Amino acid sequence: MGRNLARNLARHDFPVALHNRTYARTESLVSEHGDEGTFVPSESLEDFVASIARPRPIIVMVKAGEPTDAVIEQLVPLLDEGDVVIDCGNAHFADTRRREAALRDKALHFVGAGVSGGEEGALHGPSIMPGGSAESYETLGPMLEAIAAQVDGTPCCTHVGPDGAGHFVKMVHNGIEYADMQLIAEAYDLLRRGLGADPSRIAAIFGEWNEGDLESYLIEITADVLAHTDAATGQPFIDVVLDQAEQKGTGRWTVQTALDLGVPVTGIAEATFARSVSGHAEQREPTRAAYPDAHVEAGWRPDDEDAFVEDVRRALYASKVVAYAQGFDEIQAGSRAYDWGIDPGAMATIWRGGCIIRARFLDRIREAYDADPELPTLLVAPYFVEAVQEGLESWRRVVATAARGGIPAPAFASSLAYFDALRAERLPAALIQGLRDDFGAHTYRRVDRPGTFHTLWAGDLSEEKQG
Amino acid sequence: MGRNLARNLARHDFPVALHNRTYARTESLVSEHGDEGTFVPSESLEDFVASIARPRPIIVMVKAGEPTDAVIEQLVPLLDEGDVVIDCGNAHFADTRRREAALRDKALHFVGAGVSGGEEGALHGPSIMPGGSAESYETLGPMLEAIAAQVDGTPCCTHVGPDGAGHFVKMVHNGIEYADMQLIAEAYDLLRRGLGADPSRIAAIFGEWNEGDLESYLIEITADVLAHTDAATGQPFIDVVLDQAEQKGTGRWTVQTALDLGVPVTGIAEATFARSVSGHAEQREPTRAAYPDAHVEAGWRPDDEDAFVEDVRRALYASKVVAYAQGFDEIQAGSRAYDWGIDPGAMATIWRGGCIIRARFLDRIREAYDADPELPTLLVAPYFVEAVQEGLESWRRVVATAARGGIPAPAFASSLAYFDALRAERLPAALIQGLRDDFGAHTYRRVDRPGTFHTLWAGDLSEEKQG
Repeated sequence: MGRNLARNLARHDFPVALHNRTYARTESLVSEHGDEGTFVPSESLEDFVASIARPRPIIVMVKAGEPTDAVIEQLVPLLDEGDVVIDCGNAHFADTRRREAALRDKALHFVGAGVSGGEEGALHGPSIMPGGSAESYETLGPMLEAIAAQVDGTPCCTHVGPDGAGHFVKMVHNGIEYADMQLIAEAYDLLRRGLGADPSRIAAIFGEWNEGDLESYLIEITADVLAHTDAATGQPFIDVVLDQAEQKGTGRWTVQTALDLGVPVTGIAEATFARSVSGHAEQREPTRAAYPDAHVEAGWRPDDEDAFVEDVRRALYASKVVAYAQGFDEIQAGSRAYDWGIDPGAMATIWRGGCIIRARFLDRIREAYDADPELPTLLVAPYFVEAVQEGLESWRRVVATAARGGIPAPAFASSLAYFDALRAERLPAALIQGLRDDFGAHTYRRVDRPGTFHTLWAGDLSEEKQG
Repeated sequence: MGRNLARNLARHDFPVALHNRTYARTESLVSEHGDEGTFVPSESLEDFVASIARPRPIIVMVKAGEPTDAVIEQLVPLLDEGDVVIDCGNAHFADTRRREAALRDKALHFVGAGVSGGEEGALHGPSIMPGGSAESYETLGPMLEAIAAQVDGTPCCTHVGPDGAGHFVKMVHNGIEYADMQLIAEAYDLLRRGLGADPSRIAAIFGEWNEGDLESYLIEITADVLAHTDAATGQPFIDVVLDQAEQKGTGRWTVQTALDLGVPVTGIAEATFARSVSGHAEQREPTRAAYPDAHVEAGWRPDDEDAFVEDVRRALYASKVVAYAQGFDEIQAGSRAYDWGIDPGAMATIWRGGCIIRARFLDRIREAYDADPELPTLLVAPYFVEAVQEGLESWRRVVATAARGGIPAPAFASSLAYFDALRAERLPAALIQGLRDDFGAHTYRRVDRPGTFHTLWAGDLSEEKQG
């Protein structure tokens, strides 16, 4: 990815100083792509730093964690006041906050920049989410905006906010990506098992979906992957892939951070756990063996196939609205907790191109926040209210069908439950508060007057005002 | 809670030295309960320590976090080799590991002991989960086992394992408690809205359930809480309680730790998030306003009320099996990660009495682990296979009914989805792996031969073996 970012910069007429731990990697870049622009290779870190004009913008692209700290430690003694170190890896935002503070103490800038788009995006235009000081963005902005993806003439890059804001937003972006992919996977599974459709037919369905509201990079490549035939076996590619998904950490961080911030990101959590379930082969095999029959309800299969496809499409869209609503809630909660002043509409804007979750849908999110920056949840923006209303009956039918037919659809189901909880007149949380007061004297509040109360459950059942 | 533990010890003929930051609290204990046993009050920490015979077992009961560290810091200089400091608060197990290591360096024992049962349990017999060294348990064991709850002559206390093992197990206990309560709350909501039943009728249903497999403390007090009438309004108590639940941290920690350990605790996660959703009044009110109609499917209400009650009972039981299976998975994953050697059957044993989740059910869990200590998941233990099989159709109907009727049942739904995922022949995780290989060259494994592979998605679609 570092290699492709360097080439992207060179292609945009920025001279690029290069340094790798292994000089052969630098040589290979220059020999293969030297004609794309100006590369200045250096064997030593000292020569590398010396070859850059001040204030030096230095992109670091190494593994998150200790390798990043090691490179920073080597770099810092060679730098001068005002130089900018940019970490384009997937660092945890808390590490980025720590590093930014440490470098600020040395009059250096540290910018944690989320970069999404994979190898191809890095070369042809990624979505870039830089944090760090506003001053550092004066130096970096023109460069990063030039190499970023462009949508309708707007670069997919903006200054996200101070210190760890960029990596925080990239983390949530990845969490949403987890949810998006899990929802697509559940839609595929429902079509496959519900209709008994083969992958090529489902590829065509995803292809059609990509013409409408669901238009997005992930839907597009889902059609590609499902349409692909394995050359070795002649089977659908999807059927020869081992069904154990991996996760590299950002989904997990998104959920852990949401728990700290008190934001219910149920869609992202179910997506992260679904990958984890798939990887537990040592549990899956005996469980399969212990429940050998189908154990599904008779008559769960849809009668009208076209109507079912349309139901799944609508359920996917509504669930996706929930996943994004939860992700944007987390961004805003993080922004409040760390005083980052993140503009949620601007995040939707820079995700419209370059990144994995790029989608037509993001224009609707940007419009929603433009119309009301104080939106309490995306679910109440007029466009999304209409979309969810329209899809609601379908969503209910699909979740019910999955439950009856024994098809695991944890993200569909949990998104619907979240929606129904958020719109509920009364929640049974009241019972939980009653139980907590009974066994632990945790007190409760009342609907009819202020204060906290405790009932003497082991005594005469009278109520005491506590505070 | 500290006060009640002291009284419990005194009642069991252990002389108890007492110290509080505020001496008046010590005086009040002695004046009110001095006749229950031998109390030795001290105004200063120095006198307190001096009044105890070596090796001194000293229970610390203060707020988790900094207050605990502060007390330890004051205590340590006053102690002698072999003394045992016991933290009976709800510390994070990582803090307990740190403290245990620090005190071990000073030839002192530090025991993080989880204590469950609330105020009443502390006095009459809690469930106690002590970690720390085996040596420290030689001193503490007889004392803790004497004051713990007893079930069938067996104390609800055992040495859990080294350093943070006790607090880890207590954390998971609380996480399971979250799931248990959420499941009960969802069952109540389904009965209330599905049957249109009033709380007193539902109290009677829970009362009946408490005669069977579901027999447990939480089901028992649910009946009490639902049967209670608010004196001030004459309304059912449950209807005057504000429906915003609180969480004190251990549920959150359980989920965060499970994510680190790669254990899918979906039931506990949904329960934790459900409390969080309930607390977001600033989102609930506008969402309710944006979706004013009922938006539920026509005809979702059950025809046969008795059958529906039985369906909900079975769905509750099956979902509970999943929640406990996931919790026990986390205990075993923690035990492996930290080399604690925890005996899961022994944990079920010490939870049978004293603690909040005490239940008939735990005997079945103990038996399952006694029969097969290597059980890959509780879901494959013969007793639970039978129970889940028996309840499966009901479980499916209830989750489908909740979805169709707009009643949020996130824990029921997510538990069923987990079960269906674990027993699935194939999971759509294969599609996720395909997508990840397409956009990020993350590679995939195949079902038919070893190694990792990458398809040239942007090229000729040929496959390369990567490793």
